[in-house]
Amino acid sequence: MTETKKRTTGTRRSAETPLPGGTPGTSEGHGHVGTYGDSGPEPPDEHEATALLERARASVDPELRAALSSLPGAMRRIALYHFGWEHADGTPAAGNAGKAIRPALVLTSAAAIGGPRARTAAVRAAAAVELVHNFTLLHDDVMDRDATRRHRPTAWTVFGEPAAILAGDALQALALRLLAEDPHPASPAAVARLADCVVELCAGQHADTALERRRPAEVTLDEALAMAEAKTGALLGCSCALGALYAGAGEEDVEALDAFGRQAGLAFQLIDDVIGIWGDPRRTGKPAGADLAARKKSLPVVAALASGTPAATELAELYEASPGKGDVERTALAVERAGGRDWAQAQAADRMARAMQELVRAVPDPEAAGGLLALAEFVTRRST
Amino acid sequence: MTETKKRTTGTRRSAETPLPGGTPGTSEGHGHVGTYGDSGPEPPDEHEATALLERARASVDPELRAALSSLPGAMRRIALYHFGWEHADGTPAAGNAGKAIRPALVLTSAAAIGGPRARTAAVRAAAAVELVHNFTLLHDDVMDRDATRRHRPTAWTVFGEPAAILAGDALQALALRLLAEDPHPASPAAVARLADCVVELCAGQHADTALERRRPAEVTLDEALAMAEAKTGALLGCSCALGALYAGAGEEDVEALDAFGRQAGLAFQLIDDVIGIWGDPRRTGKPAGADLAARKKSLPVVAALASGTPAATELAELYEASPGKGDVERTALAVERAGGRDWAQAQAADRMARAMQELVRAVPDPEAAGGLLALAEFVTRRST
Repeated sequence: MTETKKRTTGTRRSAETPLPGGTPGTSEGHGHVGTYGDSGPEPPDEHEATALLERARASVDPELRAALSSLPGAMRRIALYHFGWEHADGTPAAGNAGKAIRPALVLTSAAAIGGPRARTAAVRAAAAVELVHNFTLLHDDVMDRDATRRHRPTAWTVFGEPAAILAGDALQALALRLLAEDPHPASPAAVARLADCVVELCAGQHADTALERRRPAEVTLDEALAMAEAKTGALLGCSCALGALYAGAGEEDVEALDAFGRQAGLAFQLIDDVIGIWGDPRRTGKPAGADLAARKKSLPVVAALASGTPAATELAELYEASPGKGDVERTALAVERAGGRDWAQAQAADRMARAMQELVRAVPDPEAAGGLLALAEFVTRRST
Repeated sequence: MTETKKRTTGTRRSAETPLPGGTPGTSEGHGHVGTYGDSGPEPPDEHEATALLERARASVDPELRAALSSLPGAMRRIALYHFGWEHADGTPAAGNAGKAIRPALVLTSAAAIGGPRARTAAVRAAAAVELVHNFTLLHDDVMDRDATRRHRPTAWTVFGEPAAILAGDALQALALRLLAEDPHPASPAAVARLADCVVELCAGQHADTALERRRPAEVTLDEALAMAEAKTGALLGCSCALGALYAGAGEEDVEALDAFGRQAGLAFQLIDDVIGIWGDPRRTGKPAGADLAARKKSLPVVAALASGTPAATELAELYEASPGKGDVERTALAVERAGGRDWAQAQAADRMARAMQELVRAVPDPEAAGGLLALAEFVTRRST
């Protein structure tokens, strides 16, 4: 359910920034070569991923616009504002509805298993997943009192909290209605799966808020990982599973693609958390160490706290104190010295390796798996 | 979406309190006799309605409990608290999950068209409708800052706002998942219809909050009626429609039963609004004139304001001023003198007459329609 609020799209991997997979201590590594062997495709470059994302956005937007235009007046207006398609006064806006990662996962999964026809059939499912994602963003912004989303004031700051809650409720309903009305034979299973995913997203968001309220020493790494899986991994997994369902995949392949998306989602969250601490403010659009200043118990921090090192003790003390000026650098250093940064990068690489194993299981043909591979690398590749 | 928070169940119609149908100026009247002719059943008494409600509660509770127990930890706990089945500390509670009007409408509609077998088949749909109703209550309480629901502290006051929002989100998802997983052939249409109804409920609740924020003179009666239909009528209509769908009814009958539920729902809301002004505090559990003190633009008030009478001018002035001590009686008198009370009762009778026309269309056999008739009379019969 979470993502860095302001994100520079299309950043390139620089030679100075090693991939998580290249971090020392991760002997498994990850990626297509080891997994698919030498007969595999060329290393997927970012062009492939951005092309898939752009194509997903182009396929899914007409469906999304049609769905949103079916909403009654006020609900439609709030939704169109949230998607970036209208200004607060109802006039058309250039639009920045996000990177369409989830729709791209639905469509690329469908194509990987069932080819172009399955991709076409899955467009509604892709729109439904994007509606669910945006319903959670609307509600998360209310709960977290976040004022900015995609470089604009959040919907609740413009229309009020009740309106944003109701628009989120309506988007969830719209998502499930869209799927339920789809005459495709996979529709009933897809509705049940997406609804189940929503329950998991809610539990993940709840675990996150509960975790943030507890003392640093009381949070275990297992809990933090389970929370991240529910909050971020679940919908990426569900996106892949829905694509597989729409391609007529068997239960095992559906589950394997779900696991692929979940593991890639966890890798994404780990890298996102690393960026939240050590990311370049010019790229992230957030002040350096914003997560640390907010005392956020992100994954590298929880790992550092659990390390049993002297740096962990120092970090716990810093986290117990109210944020003071100039302590962000000291806190970041403590997380790093306690091994939080290395752990997060190694863990991200490990999750990517697991994702690849699941992908190979569901889509053994490296040619067919190339798109999903490119997307998984794209979401975890953003430079720190 | 609204209902009087504390309501005495099983109140008896007293000889002193004429039914809306008996109010002068409603020549159409309403009820079974005029509609179904002399060959119709005996006037349904309250025993029939309460028996139907109790039977619905007994049928639907095991399904609801099973569904809630499938929720992850924290979501389950909040839901069980909200349903009155657990105390805040997680210990079992005697339970007061409400009167089960909506499940009873689903089951009784199914039985009216398809007999006992259809009723049995529709139990999941009845549970889904009750879950949707409770999701809206959880969110409404957050938005309206209501502190009490069914004589207990509301969930958000116990678990916090974010937790209550998330539990509501999870209940919506659970409702639609429950329906989607139902192998019954009506399931896909029922999911789409219930999801569509959720969108309407959200729009209705939004219209209500928007309407409450506007100046009294700016609210039209048509708007207020449309809001009440969306907020209260829609889910009662959907309940009946789902029962019809599960009984294999044709599209026309499904729509007729939807309209029956909507009109009965509007009648219910009109009577509820009358009670909110002139109800006996000992019966309603709320202080006399609570809605007036809160400057609520309920239907009798909007009708009074729109009457163009001198009393309407007085009422508008009272509503523009901040609530003062002792002005509730004066305000109630102004609403009454401006014709708000008579209008609401005549309108309720008119809506009941329309409900009966729709019922006759879908269920011509008076014997089969008896249960729905009893439920419609029950919800609009509560004495003022």
